[in-house]
Amino acid sequence: MRQTHLFTKTRKESPKDETSKNADLLIRAGFIHKEMAGVYDYLPLGLRVIKNIEGLIRKEMDKVGGQEVELSSLQNKEIWEKTERWDAKDIWFKTELNGGGELGLGFTHEEPLTQVMTNFVSSYKDLPLSVYQFQTKFRNELRAKSGIMRGREFLMKDMYTFALDKEQHEELYAKLKEAYIEIFKKAGIGEITHPTKALGGTFSPYSDEFQTETGSGEDTIHVCTACNIAYNEEVKGEFEKCTCGSDSFETKKTVEVGNIFNLGTKFSEALGLSYKDESGKENNVHMGSYGIGLGRLMGTIAETLSDEKGLVWPMSVAPFQVHLVRLGDNEEVVRSADEFYEGLLREGVEVLYDDRDVSAGEKFNDSDLIGIPLRVVVSAKTVQSGEHEMVERQSGKTHFVTESSLVDTIQSYVREI
Amino acid sequence: MRQTHLFTKTRKESPKDETSKNADLLIRAGFIHKEMAGVYDYLPLGLRVIKNIEGLIRKEMDKVGGQEVELSSLQNKEIWEKTERWDAKDIWFKTELNGGGELGLGFTHEEPLTQVMTNFVSSYKDLPLSVYQFQTKFRNELRAKSGIMRGREFLMKDMYTFALDKEQHEELYAKLKEAYIEIFKKAGIGEITHPTKALGGTFSPYSDEFQTETGSGEDTIHVCTACNIAYNEEVKGEFEKCTCGSDSFETKKTVEVGNIFNLGTKFSEALGLSYKDESGKENNVHMGSYGIGLGRLMGTIAETLSDEKGLVWPMSVAPFQVHLVRLGDNEEVVRSADEFYEGLLREGVEVLYDDRDVSAGEKFNDSDLIGIPLRVVVSAKTVQSGEHEMVERQSGKTHFVTESSLVDTIQSYVREI
Repeated sequence: MRQTHLFTKTRKESPKDETSKNADLLIRAGFIHKEMAGVYDYLPLGLRVIKNIEGLIRKEMDKVGGQEVELSSLQNKEIWEKTERWDAKDIWFKTELNGGGELGLGFTHEEPLTQVMTNFVSSYKDLPLSVYQFQTKFRNELRAKSGIMRGREFLMKDMYTFALDKEQHEELYAKLKEAYIEIFKKAGIGEITHPTKALGGTFSPYSDEFQTETGSGEDTIHVCTACNIAYNEEVKGEFEKCTCGSDSFETKKTVEVGNIFNLGTKFSEALGLSYKDESGKENNVHMGSYGIGLGRLMGTIAETLSDEKGLVWPMSVAPFQVHLVRLGDNEEVVRSADEFYEGLLREGVEVLYDDRDVSAGEKFNDSDLIGIPLRVVVSAKTVQSGEHEMVERQSGKTHFVTESSLVDTIQSYVREI
Repeated sequence: MRQTHLFTKTRKESPKDETSKNADLLIRAGFIHKEMAGVYDYLPLGLRVIKNIEGLIRKEMDKVGGQEVELSSLQNKEIWEKTERWDAKDIWFKTELNGGGELGLGFTHEEPLTQVMTNFVSSYKDLPLSVYQFQTKFRNELRAKSGIMRGREFLMKDMYTFALDKEQHEELYAKLKEAYIEIFKKAGIGEITHPTKALGGTFSPYSDEFQTETGSGEDTIHVCTACNIAYNEEVKGEFEKCTCGSDSFETKKTVEVGNIFNLGTKFSEALGLSYKDESGKENNVHMGSYGIGLGRLMGTIAETLSDEKGLVWPMSVAPFQVHLVRLGDNEEVVRSADEFYEGLLREGVEVLYDDRDVSAGEKFNDSDLIGIPLRVVVSAKTVQSGEHEMVERQSGKTHFVTESSLVDTIQSYVREI
């Protein structure tokens, strides 16, 4: 995409009403717009990141046999009264139907999906099943000061599993746990993200969270220095030693980027989701739930990988793979940069081409702030030498590349994802 | 996808509380689930159709230079008071923020997008711009009896254009009108969809609608028998003759599948979206809006192309390209069907593989109801002959195909899209 065509622009000043680092950076770089506290719009660059994150997660959900659906936001009171969650006042946004009747805006989807599944599950032969969606959640947060890390409205991937029994549930749960580790690794935050034991619920003493180290984290975890598994502050008292045997821990401030829960039969009992086993006996379905907030993951990547110059995107989620920066507008430079751009597009490389008529300093500052992983500079000097200058955003390493060697470089990055 | 893996099942009986043909068919075939009147969940087959429609529309929006964003559903009262649309009581779902403050759920997005654009548009050099999104709208309809054709919650593609003046606006408008004609053609309803003159607004006497002939349509149009352009009942009195000169019209019942509007400077004036021209003078931006409801389009395709046996999807939006139906479970048939399935997957063909252990009659009935464009039957007979039977769902034509000739056939369909 030519940058002269992109409607967003960067800004130098931090927005006055924004206290979070992620939203400050993302607003200055033109990725998002603040509608109100906890409610953000995704602008072209930001939406490209969200779509890449969505694609990355979808791939892993499909690998474990997930089937994608999309449930409604508007929710019927009746279903939620059956699980006694209609009166959870701190979380719902509620509204009124013209002509009468109270509705809620879904903050999660255990109830409606369990209800849907009663139409399709009746026999042991129908199980196990894993169903997921990318869907907008609404949560009436009293405070929303963490930018896109804690939204009042946000896109969430939520998967729900349906199993015959505890044993089959645990197989699905273990597979999903592995899938989550893979997702955070591919999203570029694997090394700073810890599978973390946290409080469970009625059906198991513990749940599993995925906690990412950040200076501004809301949570505190204790990371085992021997095996890297962590324990949330809330359960740490229960674990004098790690399950690996070590008793040496490091304390970290973190943010939760994902969580997985054993729901047992709480929802299937309340909503009548059961199956006949081989002997003809009715049993309640054993459920699990598995969430990742896409905005929160994007915000976490923005906060943890950025540097003093701006955003730093890993190739897997970056809005573009290459930022082609043209310096100067003499005929030969323009022709060479245009050709280079067209050549990369033909190879399927995603390129933001800075063809603007502004100073080199402004172009470099903007490029640093936007944080595309590879920057290629085309100038009178590089046109003369026949090799253009490529800078890796994260490491700052500089290479010299021709068009074909750049395509190879990109492809080696893409292969890694 | 193996059908034994698909969690939805077809049902023979029509849902009791459903009066619309589209929702009746889609529920029976397992594409959607009714949450409440006017609110539907998309199940795996239905979501695949919606995603295909989304892809088809996105392609045309990108072709005309559209930039994709995603704005929030939660809306601030203040912005909408500026255009005096906050008090449009019949359409809003409103809600309350914990801690105080009234919010609305967007039923359209002129106001918030105009507000966003004030951050990025200041000079004539910034225009023209076209910005679009696929975003969930909420409309508090008093009656919602048309299935997914008139939702209280529905996915909409809305594009907004921003132009220097009326002349530049008209260029964008004409391009979008062509793009819409292309979209409905590709979605398989081109021949029964008419560009229709309808009532305009403050800034132009007429708007353009796209009206599709259906028995159950809410609208009445008068189609010129000479040139196929139509006039909505509401403006017909103003046109004794068609713009082509003919005065011969046919009256049709239709449903509106898209509309495009000249907004003039109504929103830019109210929200302060202006630009400096070359002489330094401030001017209001001239806007247009262009909508397509994805559920409505899907419902229209379902209603108009279906037959007495069930749904009939055009290849462009079908949930799968091929329905591979295996008859019987003798070893050779299973091996042959499995190989055929794997071979098609390798070629990138989207296949639903009916590997269930049910009767041939049930398989054919389900296949007719689900409406995938090509059905390939693998049976003891076809295994022996070396050629499998392929039936076109729409025409009922039968052909005999080998694996490689089927891949060619699919590719010729896909090329047409």
